[in-house]
Amino acid sequence: MRDVAIIGIGITKFGELWEKSLRDIAVEAILNCLDDAGTDRIDAMTIGCMSGGLFNGQEHLASMIPDYLGRRGLPATRVESACASGGLAVRTAFLEVASGMSDYVMAVGVEKMNDVDGGKATFALATAADGDYEAFNGINFPGLYALMAKAHMDKYGTTREMMAEVAVKNHRNGALNPNAQFPMEITRETVLNGAMVADPFRLFDCSPVTDGAAAVLLTTVEEAKKLGKHPLVVISGIGVATDTIALSQRKDILKLDVVALAAERAFKMAGKTIKDMDFAEVHDCFTIAEIMVIEALGIAEQGKGGQFTIDGKSALNGEFPINPSGGLKSKGHPVGATGVAQIFEAVLQLRGQAGKRQIKDAKTALTQNMGGSGGSCVIHILEAK
Amino acid sequence: MRDVAIIGIGITKFGELWEKSLRDIAVEAILNCLDDAGTDRIDAMTIGCMSGGLFNGQEHLASMIPDYLGRRGLPATRVESACASGGLAVRTAFLEVASGMSDYVMAVGVEKMNDVDGGKATFALATAADGDYEAFNGINFPGLYALMAKAHMDKYGTTREMMAEVAVKNHRNGALNPNAQFPMEITRETVLNGAMVADPFRLFDCSPVTDGAAAVLLTTVEEAKKLGKHPLVVISGIGVATDTIALSQRKDILKLDVVALAAERAFKMAGKTIKDMDFAEVHDCFTIAEIMVIEALGIAEQGKGGQFTIDGKSALNGEFPINPSGGLKSKGHPVGATGVAQIFEAVLQLRGQAGKRQIKDAKTALTQNMGGSGGSCVIHILEAK
Repeated sequence: MRDVAIIGIGITKFGELWEKSLRDIAVEAILNCLDDAGTDRIDAMTIGCMSGGLFNGQEHLASMIPDYLGRRGLPATRVESACASGGLAVRTAFLEVASGMSDYVMAVGVEKMNDVDGGKATFALATAADGDYEAFNGINFPGLYALMAKAHMDKYGTTREMMAEVAVKNHRNGALNPNAQFPMEITRETVLNGAMVADPFRLFDCSPVTDGAAAVLLTTVEEAKKLGKHPLVVISGIGVATDTIALSQRKDILKLDVVALAAERAFKMAGKTIKDMDFAEVHDCFTIAEIMVIEALGIAEQGKGGQFTIDGKSALNGEFPINPSGGLKSKGHPVGATGVAQIFEAVLQLRGQAGKRQIKDAKTALTQNMGGSGGSCVIHILEAK
Repeated sequence: MRDVAIIGIGITKFGELWEKSLRDIAVEAILNCLDDAGTDRIDAMTIGCMSGGLFNGQEHLASMIPDYLGRRGLPATRVESACASGGLAVRTAFLEVASGMSDYVMAVGVEKMNDVDGGKATFALATAADGDYEAFNGINFPGLYALMAKAHMDKYGTTREMMAEVAVKNHRNGALNPNAQFPMEITRETVLNGAMVADPFRLFDCSPVTDGAAAVLLTTVEEAKKLGKHPLVVISGIGVATDTIALSQRKDILKLDVVALAAERAFKMAGKTIKDMDFAEVHDCFTIAEIMVIEALGIAEQGKGGQFTIDGKSALNGEFPINPSGGLKSKGHPVGATGVAQIFEAVLQLRGQAGKRQIKDAKTALTQNMGGSGGSCVIHILEAK
C-alpha cells in the first residue's frame, strides 16, 4: 500500500447560499483546493454527498461535478453513508492513491440543503435512519438523539448545562472561523432558553441546515515530497465501521460502539493511541453527540463526557481540544461536506495556519465523522511530518 | 497493486418483487454469492444503488445492508453513478482489495424501483440527467435517447427494424435466463407495433422498471488460488470515464466518447484489445444504446451497429455475442444492480455454467455499464485463467 499525503485543502463559506447551486459550491471548493495545492493535476475524483436526489433532484454527481469543473472524462465516484459521506469520500480517494490506480485524487464533499423546505429537509435527513422501523413511523433525528440524551441524563447524571456547554464552546471556536455559518459566541442561557425542538433539545442543541462544500487533494507521500510540501500532512490511519441502522437494535444506546470500533481500526493502522492525538474534530450533530463521541473515543471516561466538557477540558486551550473549527454546531453541517470539512480543519491546524483558533504545536489530529444515529462512522488520523 | 479475482457470484430473480423489500433482495443476492463462493468471509462491502432516497425513502445502505446481513461492524461504502452504480461498486471493491486495505470484499448492487408509481420512478431516473438544464425542463431518459436515435437514423440510415432486432435478440437470449424479468421471445412486429413511448421508441425499445440485486465476492488472486478456484476468474482491466452530464454539451451526440475512453483505459490496464474479447455484456437501456455502445467499443464500425445487429453478428452464435444474459431489455434493469449483474453473467459464462445460453469456450469478457445519457461509464475486463 502506498503512503498517502494531503497536499491541498479548500472550502466554501457555510450557510444559506441562495445565490449558488449545488454544482457551483462543489466546484468552488475544488478550485480553492487546487489553488491551495499549487497544482491543477487531478487524475480521479470522489464526491461525498448524502442525498442530491432528495435535496436537489440531482443524482449522478460523479458526472456533473467533473463536467462543471471543466474536466470531462475524469474517473469519478460518488460515495454515501448519510452524514459520514464526506469522510468516506476521503477514504475512497485514499484507496485510489494507495492502490496505485491514480496518483492525484480530489475528494470533495458537498450538500445543498436549503433548496427544499424544512419538512422535506427533515425527511431527507430521516432517510439515514431505518425507514421501515424508524422514519416511516414518525421519528426523526432530533427525536433519536433526544432518546439517547434522556437516557444519558438518567443513567450518568448528565445535565442540560453540560450539554449546553458543548454548544457554547463550539460557538466560541466558531466565532474565530470566517467560514462558519454562525460565527458568534452564545451564552449558556441562550441554549437553555431556546425554542424546544425535541426534549431535552432546544434550538441551540442542534446543528443547523447548511449549504456548503469542502475539498482535499491526495497524492502519494513520494509525490508530495517532490512538490516540497512542508509540513507534510499524511493520512496515517483510517477506520470505518458500521452498526445497526436502527437505534432500537443497539446493544447499548449509551455507547457508540461504531465510534470505538472505527477508532480501534484507525489506531491500529497508524500505530497510535488516543493519547498520541493533539486534538480532534468530532461529529457534534447534537450536543449529546459530542459528549458520547468523546466517551467512545476514550477522551473522557464513559458517562463523564458532560463533566469533561463543562470543566473546560475540551476547550481550545483545554487538555484535549475538541472541534476547534466550531464543529457542526457553529460552523454548520452540510451533511455530505462535513467529513471533508473536518479534515480541512485538521490540516489547517497541523500546518499552523488556523489563525486565532490555532492549537499550539498541533502535530497529530483525529477526525470523526458519523452517519445516522451511529449506524456508520469514519475516522481519520492525520500527522504532520 | 494486488491482483484481484472474483470467487463468488449471486443474484435474485429480476422483476416486480412486491413481496420483498430493498434490504431483503440485497441480502438474498449476498447470501447466494457466499453460497456460490463456499466461504462466509467478508472483510468489507461496497453497495451500488442509484437512488434509495427517491425510490424507497432510504439512504444509508452502507449501514443497513451489513446490519440486515447480520454483520454489524463491517466497513461499508455505498457508491453511485446513476445507472453505472453497480459497475462502480465492483471497481471500488477492487480498490479495497488491490490496495491491501481488505482481503475479501463483497460488492452488491441493488435497486427496488417498484415501491413508487411510474411518474415518481421516471423522476427518480431523470435525476441522472442535468437537473437545471434537462430534467427540470421536462425531458426524461426515453426522450434523451430518442433524440440520439432520431439523429442516428438520419445520419447513418439506421432503421426501426435494426433497433427492433436488438430487442428481439436480447429477448431470445433472456428466454434462456431463469432470472430474467421478461424471459420470453418476441417478434420484430411486436417491437414495431408497440405502444409509443418517445418517437422513435415504442414499448419494447425500452428496458423495464425492475426490482433486483446482484453480488460478487472479490479477493486476491493469491487467496483465490489457495481456495482452489478453477477456472480462476480475474479482473484484468477496469476503466472509468465521465462526459458532460447534459446531452446538449457533447461534442457529437452520435458518439459515446465516454464508452470509448473507459474502454481505452480498461484495455490499457489489461494489455488487451477488443479483438481479444469473446463476448460482451453492454448497457442496452434503449435499443439505440446497444447499437451506439458496440460502435463506441469498436465491435461494429461507426454508424454500422444497426446493420451488425440485424445481420445476426451479435447473436449468441454470432461473431461477437452481445448480452447473452438478455441484457437490460429482457433481463430487466434494476439500475444500481445492473453493473453487478453484468459481471455475474460474465463470470457464469467464463466458468462455463451458463447452460443453454453458454457461449462456447468463452475465456475473456467485457462488461460495459453506463450512467445517464452517457455521462459516466464503467468497463471491466474479465479473464478465465
